[in-house]
Amino acid sequence: MLFFTQCFGAVLDLIHLRFQHYKAKRVFSAAGQLVCVVNPTHSLKYAPTLCAAVQTSTEQGILPPCHHHEAVHDPQLVPCMCPLFSCPWEGHLEVVVSHLRQTHHINILQGAEIVFLATDMHLPAPTDWIIMHSCLGHQFLLVLRKQEKYEGHPQFFATMMLIGTPTQADNFTYRLELNRNQRRLKWEATPRSVLECVDSVISDGDCLVLNTSLAQLFSDNGSLAIGIAITTSKVHNSEAEM
Amino acid sequence: MLFFTQCFGAVLDLIHLRFQHYKAKRVFSAAGQLVCVVNPTHSLKYAPTLCAAVQTSTEQGILPPCHHHEAVHDPQLVPCMCPLFSCPWEGHLEVVVSHLRQTHHINILQGAEIVFLATDMHLPAPTDWIIMHSCLGHQFLLVLRKQEKYEGHPQFFATMMLIGTPTQADNFTYRLELNRNQRRLKWEATPRSVLECVDSVISDGDCLVLNTSLAQLFSDNGSLAIGIAITTSKVHNSEAEM
Repeated sequence: MLFFTQCFGAVLDLIHLRFQHYKAKRVFSAAGQLVCVVNPTHSLKYAPTLCAAVQTSTEQGILPPCHHHEAVHDPQLVPCMCPLFSCPWEGHLEVVVSHLRQTHHINILQGAEIVFLATDMHLPAPTDWIIMHSCLGHQFLLVLRKQEKYEGHPQFFATMMLIGTPTQADNFTYRLELNRNQRRLKWEATPRSVLECVDSVISDGDCLVLNTSLAQLFSDNGSLAIGIAITTSKVHNSEAEM
Repeated sequence: MLFFTQCFGAVLDLIHLRFQHYKAKRVFSAAGQLVCVVNPTHSLKYAPTLCAAVQTSTEQGILPPCHHHEAVHDPQLVPCMCPLFSCPWEGHLEVVVSHLRQTHHINILQGAEIVFLATDMHLPAPTDWIIMHSCLGHQFLLVLRKQEKYEGHPQFFATMMLIGTPTQADNFTYRLELNRNQRRLKWEATPRSVLECVDSVISDGDCLVLNTSLAQLFSDNGSLAIGIAITTSKVHNSEAEM
C-alpha cells in the first residue's frame, strides 16, 4: 500500500513538473503580436540587501565577476550571464545563447515586436522573469526583476541587454511599453551589452522602474504585459539626417 | 552705521526678491516649443511623513479637506487647490485660476505643447514645482513634487490635473515626456480633476514616478525638462473608430 502511495506521489510530481515546463513555454499570438508567457524564478543568488551582498561576494571571487564596458574589449571567455544563478560556466560570447537555452531553459522568441507576459507579479522579492529575444540578426536578453532596494519596498526593474559587445549594442534602441486602463508608460534606451553586469544596470536605476502601485495599475489578474520592440539606431539617425 | 548696514541689507533683500520673481517668470522658446522655467517652492505644508500627517490634519479639519470623485457632483464652493500652502480660501471652480494666479503667483502658459523646466532638482524634499497650462479651452495644473514616501529615499512625482470637474477631465489625455542621453520616458493618462486631492494621486502612485537616479539621468545641470502635451480623448477615440 505504501509502495502504491509513493508511486502515485511520484507520478503526480512528474505531471506537475511537466505542467510547469509547459507553462514556461506558452507562446500565443494576440492581435498580430507574439505573446510569450514568462513564469517567475525565485532567485537564489540575491538576498534582499542584494547590492552589497553581491558586490562583497564578487570582490571575494565567489560569484563570477561583472565585466564592464571598459574592462572587456576583446573577450575570449565570458562567464555565464544568466542572472538567475551563480553558474560556474565560462565560454565564448557566441555560445552564450545555447548555454542559456540548454542549461537554464530560457526561451528564445523571434519577431520584431513581442509581448512579454510576466505572471505571478505578487511573488516576494527577489524574483526574476527572463526571456531571450531574437531580432535583427541578434539575440537580446530581457530581464524583469522584483527587488527590494529599500527593505520592505519592492520595485520592478526591466531592462534589455544585447548578447554581444557594447559596440554592437550601441547600434540598437529598445522600447518597453505598458498600456492599460487609459494609462501608458514607455521606456526607450540603448540596450547594454551582457558583458556589463545586469546587477549594475539595475542598481544604477538606468532601466524601466516601477513601484508596486504602478505595477498593480498596469497588471491584469497578477500578470504584467510588456510590449517590446527593437530598432536599429543607425537607420533612425540617418533617417533623421535625411 | 548700524542704520546704513540695515538699509543695505533691506535693499539686498529687495534685489534678491526681485530676482526670484524674475526667475519664476522666465519663459522662452526653443525649437518651436514654449519653455517655461519653473522654480521650486519648499512646501511648508508637508512633513517627510506626509501622508499620515496630512490625513490626520484633514480629519481634524485643520487643512481643507480633499474632495473625491464620488463626493463632489455639483460643487458650489471648493477649497484652494494650491498644494503649496494650507490656504483657507474657498470659492467657485470658475475663480480657482484667478485665485492661484493672484494669491499664489502661479504662472499660466498657453499652447498645445510646452516644456516645463524644473530647476534646482537637488533641493531636499518636500519641494513642489507648479504651473498652470491653458489649452483646448481649459486650464490644467501641473504639479511636480519631490517627496520622501520612504524616509531617506526621495522620489519625484509628476501629474496633471484639470481645473474642472471629473467628468470634464475624462475628455482629455495628457502626456509627460522626458528625453535625454538616448533615453526616453513617456507617461500618458487621463488627467484627474483638481476636485480630487493631488495628495491622494501622489500617494496612490498613479502618476509619473522617478527615483533619484532616473531623475539625475534625465536632468541637465540640476534642471529637469518635461515635455507636456494635452489632447482630447474623444477626438482620439473617434479617430481610432474611423
